[in-house]
Amino acid sequence: MSRIDGRTPQQLRPVTIERGWSKHAEGSVLVSFGDTKVLCNASVTEGVPRWRKGSGEGWVTAEYAMLPRATNTRGDRESVKGRIGGRTHEISRLIGRSLRAVIDYKALGENTVVLDCDVLQADGGTRTAAITGAYVALADAIGWAQGHKLIKANRKPLTGTVSAVSVGIVDGTPLLDLRYEEDVRADTDMNVVCTGDGRFVEVQGTAEAEPFARDELNTLLDLATAGCTELAELQRKALEATLER
Amino acid sequence: MSRIDGRTPQQLRPVTIERGWSKHAEGSVLVSFGDTKVLCNASVTEGVPRWRKGSGEGWVTAEYAMLPRATNTRGDRESVKGRIGGRTHEISRLIGRSLRAVIDYKALGENTVVLDCDVLQADGGTRTAAITGAYVALADAIGWAQGHKLIKANRKPLTGTVSAVSVGIVDGTPLLDLRYEEDVRADTDMNVVCTGDGRFVEVQGTAEAEPFARDELNTLLDLATAGCTELAELQRKALEATLER
Amino acid sequence: MSRIDGRTPQQLRPVTIERGWSKHAEGSVLVSFGDTKVLCNASVTEGVPRWRKGSGEGWVTAEYAMLPRATNTRGDRESVKGRIGGRTHEISRLIGRSLRAVIDYKALGENTVVLDCDVLQADGGTRTAAITGAYVALADAIGWAQGHKLIKANRKPLTGTVSAVSVGIVDGTPLLDLRYEEDVRADTDMNVVCTGDGRFVEVQGTAEAEPFARDELNTLLDLATAGCTELAELQRKALEATLER
Amino acid sequence: MSRIDGRTPQQLRPVTIERGWSKHAEGSVLVSFGDTKVLCNASVTEGVPRWRKGSGEGWVTAEYAMLPRATNTRGDRESVKGRIGGRTHEISRLIGRSLRAVIDYKALGENTVVLDCDVLQADGGTRTAAITGAYVALADAIGWAQGHKLIKANRKPLTGTVSAVSVGIVDGTPLLDLRYEEDVRADTDMNVVCTGDGRFVEVQGTAEAEPFARDELNTLLDLATAGCTELAELQRKALEATLER
Amino acid sequence: MSRIDGRTPQQLRPVTIERGWSKHAEGSVLVSFGDTKVLCNASVTEGVPRWRKGSGEGWVTAEYAMLPRATNTRGDRESVKGRIGGRTHEISRLIGRSLRAVIDYKALGENTVVLDCDVLQADGGTRTAAITGAYVALADAIGWAQGHKLIKANRKPLTGTVSAVSVGIVDGTPLLDLRYEEDVRADTDMNVVCTGDGRFVEVQGTAEAEPFARDELNTLLDLATAGCTELAELQRKALEATLER
Amino acid sequence: MSRIDGRTPQQLRPVTIERGWSKHAEGSVLVSFGDTKVLCNASVTEGVPRWRKGSGEGWVTAEYAMLPRATNTRGDRESVKGRIGGRTHEISRLIGRSLRAVIDYKALGENTVVLDCDVLQADGGTRTAAITGAYVALADAIGWAQGHKLIKANRKPLTGTVSAVSVGIVDGTPLLDLRYEEDVRADTDMNVVCTGDGRFVEVQGTAEAEPFARDELNTLLDLATAGCTELAELQRKALEATLER
Repeated sequence: MSRIDGRTPQQLRPVTIERGWSKHAEGSVLVSFGDTKVLCNASVTEGVPRWRKGSGEGWVTAEYAMLPRATNTRGDRESVKGRIGGRTHEISRLIGRSLRAVIDYKALGENTVVLDCDVLQADGGTRTAAITGAYVALADAIGWAQGHKLIKANRKPLTGTVSAVSVGIVDGTPLLDLRYEEDVRADTDMNVVCTGDGRFVEVQGTAEAEPFARDELNTLLDLATAGCTELAELQRKALEATLER
Repeated sequence: MSRIDGRTPQQLRPVTIERGWSKHAEGSVLVSFGDTKVLCNASVTEGVPRWRKGSGEGWVTAEYAMLPRATNTRGDRESVKGRIGGRTHEISRLIGRSLRAVIDYKALGENTVVLDCDVLQADGGTRTAAITGAYVALADAIGWAQGHKLIKANRKPLTGTVSAVSVGIVDGTPLLDLRYEEDVRADTDMNVVCTGDGRFVEVQGTAEAEPFARDELNTLLDLATAGCTELAELQRKALEATLER
Repeated sequence: MSRIDGRTPQQLRPVTIERGWSKHAEGSVLVSFGDTKVLCNASVTEGVPRWRKGSGEGWVTAEYAMLPRATNTRGDRESVKGRIGGRTHEISRLIGRSLRAVIDYKALGENTVVLDCDVLQADGGTRTAAITGAYVALADAIGWAQGHKLIKANRKPLTGTVSAVSVGIVDGTPLLDLRYEEDVRADTDMNVVCTGDGRFVEVQGTAEAEPFARDELNTLLDLATAGCTELAELQRKALEATLER
Repeated sequence: MSRIDGRTPQQLRPVTIERGWSKHAEGSVLVSFGDTKVLCNASVTEGVPRWRKGSGEGWVTAEYAMLPRATNTRGDRESVKGRIGGRTHEISRLIGRSLRAVIDYKALGENTVVLDCDVLQADGGTRTAAITGAYVALADAIGWAQGHKLIKANRKPLTGTVSAVSVGIVDGTPLLDLRYEEDVRADTDMNVVCTGDGRFVEVQGTAEAEPFARDELNTLLDLATAGCTELAELQRKALEATLER
Repeated sequence: MSRIDGRTPQQLRPVTIERGWSKHAEGSVLVSFGDTKVLCNASVTEGVPRWRKGSGEGWVTAEYAMLPRATNTRGDRESVKGRIGGRTHEISRLIGRSLRAVIDYKALGENTVVLDCDVLQADGGTRTAAITGAYVALADAIGWAQGHKLIKANRKPLTGTVSAVSVGIVDGTPLLDLRYEEDVRADTDMNVVCTGDGRFVEVQGTAEAEPFARDELNTLLDLATAGCTELAELQRKALEATLER
Repeated sequence: MSRIDGRTPQQLRPVTIERGWSKHAEGSVLVSFGDTKVLCNASVTEGVPRWRKGSGEGWVTAEYAMLPRATNTRGDRESVKGRIGGRTHEISRLIGRSLRAVIDYKALGENTVVLDCDVLQADGGTRTAAITGAYVALADAIGWAQGHKLIKANRKPLTGTVSAVSVGIVDGTPLLDLRYEEDVRADTDMNVVCTGDGRFVEVQGTAEAEPFARDELNTLLDLATAGCTELAELQRKALEATLER
């Protein structure tokens, strides 16, 4: 089987991670997985939500959204509709949980980092691109906070790295990093979030058409784990360069 | 390790499935997994949402909610807050997807079934209890619709059965069907939805504290598959009796 | 005239008052007037709303709601619509006022009791069943608060008892405790809330079709007063038993 | 006991009913009960709400609101808060029901009349003033509709007249038509809506402090009936004059 | 060209400014520009919004709204729709900015004045009538606050006067103070807010149909400046009389 | 006086207009005025809003929004707040009106173009950049619609071009195209929208601190007209190139 863009089943799309995209945010990354482009801005503020005050621990949260014309057909703005949809809620929560999995709250101190992940252009895999980019923005934001003495320099608020990728079974073939056209044809669709050491943070598999068997699940997990490892390496390289502010 | 209620790690709580609970709904099931009690009402209406009209295919959807004092501390009503929270959205979507996995839309015809899953008392595992109970309510609702000629008697809108259970790792031990007190202490928490033939409809694993390794994932999947098989048998038995209307 | 369920005009439906229904709430009553079933949960919290702080006085309030399929036709959830309807507002306010009529705020101290009255199944008279059940849940909640030293044992926050019943004129005959089918055919519909000593807390009479004359009003008040007295006796009996917690 | 404004207990405040207040509305009445001023605008539109289409019957509904500074202390706008409060809902529904009690839907034909009752200045009794004024605006709107051939000239959509007044027990004395200062001191507060022939459309009595006995209720109903009769006469006189349009 | 009401192009409609309209508000003005009637109530409260606390400076803000039947066709209530429309937002902000242009925040001290401008009847120019009337209500409110020692008597919170008028080009002729029928036919529509000394606070010109040239703009500004001067004189006269409270 | 970025008072910031930014939208422009970056996506759909159906005329509308971290301090999402703020409403309406000023509705036919202007990074002048960029996106969208036969090739829906710029008086000096730091220090702030032939579509001047005199207004209009002419030339050049799709 040949994929619409000529990739092998195990191949990621071209991935770019552009740091320092916006001049305002403490961490700002424009991540692209092929034609999927997500702007991930990390905002640092001193203090924590009320329920956490006085704990000595910090907080990390995320909000995901799509521009109305990020997709092929224009979607109504959630601000105009006056309410956030279920899909938006679900993905925002997923991104937040994924990043908190590599945070040491004590080391972060009573600071809050909000990750805004806004999809500028969508072509499948927006949530996994968002997690992958948001990790880098978070790392830059923590670097900024240490540079500005909000976090002590000898603390390590990040306990690891985190990246994510989608996998799915299309026409019987397990594929890595689905484009939109592949995604809508998939029988099974799975999003996997891994730490850099190859363990799982989130595994979310859904039978879109046909229930899936244990061995199919295993094949997909193999694909996803390899993809996350590759993404972790790309994150590492992106963070090597010194960020000019 | 002994569990707070004396169960073995592989043991479900006492499960009851009471059909015909409400006199109004076409399918009405009060399901309990121990102290978790969920009222699952299935409502059948002729016709489908606008985007599906004329397709000849039906639709199945679900709404999940908790009574304000279903939990130990009273929660504000979402109707009073004027918006549905992310958790509610997420679970409603999960229940809908899970039930649609065993629906043949063509056989259902242009009819809609709405599953209302209202948690009357919560003690962990409300979403998996809801799926397990909602399947039985759905089966009764389809029976009703066939009795009332909305669906032809020779059609089979249900392509299989579906049940769900939670699993998790608490203090290093993988456990089946977590109570609330176990759930809050779990390192990893997974909800698994299976068909009666042992395949997966949904696998949602989350590292609450520590990322989890592949072998831990495998152990949890084994536990969950066994639990779902047991629940499928309880569903089958519950549906054997004739429902008086 | 014979009523649809064979009752005499002056007869209540079978009434049950089940205390301790939920394990979480400080007072929890499942009340049924025939097929009308309302779960009344009382939640006690220390402290009072901001506008009452420092007064030394407590507060009692209520929220009423119906499950979507409590009725013959499914109603949309108010949480999904994003707003509470006029009927819900009106009944919540009525329940709150009715219970506050028998509360000594000073004796309650700066504690708040919220009564959640959720209709699980409706067949007419849901608001009057809710008031009758909520009184018992409130009594249990106050007992709990005294047991937990939130309220001093020698204080008497309850100055009396309160119960409620509907009455109406159907085909020229005044009837007590209307079922839904009677209610929709009633020319005049009245809800009456009484204290245990036979005085009125609320009298709400509405001409659904034809305006009503003074003597009709008098007949309805006689019926309602007798009904409330009977309910007060049932409440008293229900509260005699010791509640296991 | 002498009242704050020198009235006897059985005396209404000075009542004025000014027709044709606004040039746009089909019926427009500025009604005042002393310092309480309510602008009642009736809007006629052809057609009825969806659920009534094809029935040949009309519809009458009402919306009540207060200007933010109608009262002594400024209240937040409900449009700014994004939701209508319980009190507003309750009164809007009361006004609508009261006017529908004197409407023959068949004679009205498939036309809708909306009564907007906006309180410009409040000093107690705003809902009863609104009903009394809205009746006159409704009569003018129906006259307009007959003049414009929306309703046939030989039909009589109004089957009677309707007026309303508040009564209450203050310091043990039953009083008619309470001002705000009297209202806040009342033990019992009752709003009574009567037809011109002395029958009841709505009776809403509330024990604000102390439950009330049957003989107190009777005294209040006597007072209210007399007050409504007087108001019906004032409505009749106001409608005698020809309205210039 | 003769205008529909016989005015010359440079002529205002009859303007009335009635002070002390409501007994509750600290400043209350019913302003009319012909058939446009706006009730402007000024409410004074001690203290300022949170973001201004401790600054020693006051705050002035405004809210504009229309009664549903202020216009020829009934508009839905924004409270019922659950959201404020763009036009309402825009005009509320314009009124607030216009009044703040003549406020010395330091002299006002930490007090807040809210101007509620409710259109009772509309016939074009509601926002400019609102600004013109609100200025007078604001002056009365400040007088009240000085009388009640909230503001020291020797302070001058008002640094000038402010009035507003609409101008437009209809069928090629520049006109002052447009009525609704003129407004809908205008090619260009401009609202101008001036101080009493003839300087500009706001200039808002909009090409409704055809873009406008610089010389047309100049003609309109001449007309508007003259109109505002005339209105400033009417405001001055209205404020000369002593206001009985 | 030297400006913070070394520009002369009459000088625009570097302006870039990048067409075809998103692959999905029928017209897609990333416009930048210095550090202000706005993504303007034009979406074409057949058909018009209900109130315009059957008229043979098209419709153009706009929605403006800011990403939460487009600014120096993170702003809450309007979707999360559940309502659109006054500023957003005001600017969306301004953009829509400005573009409609150069549209021939008949030539557009019953098609709708929605312009989504999302500010990715803000540094003053976001609304004027949005108008300038949206015009180019609109032109591309109309070209697309003609290429796809939604609009006949010989029709000219665009009657001219439109661009916009901000001007203001800072420390007594009139400046063109204010950056954020200049904007907050401006006494007077004006946004001017011009057609390519030098006429005005919108003139919105606001006295932020001190009211402004007629000659100051004239100077600002001169500056703005020259700026708009320059921008019109940049738009013309941007549109010269063939857009690859």
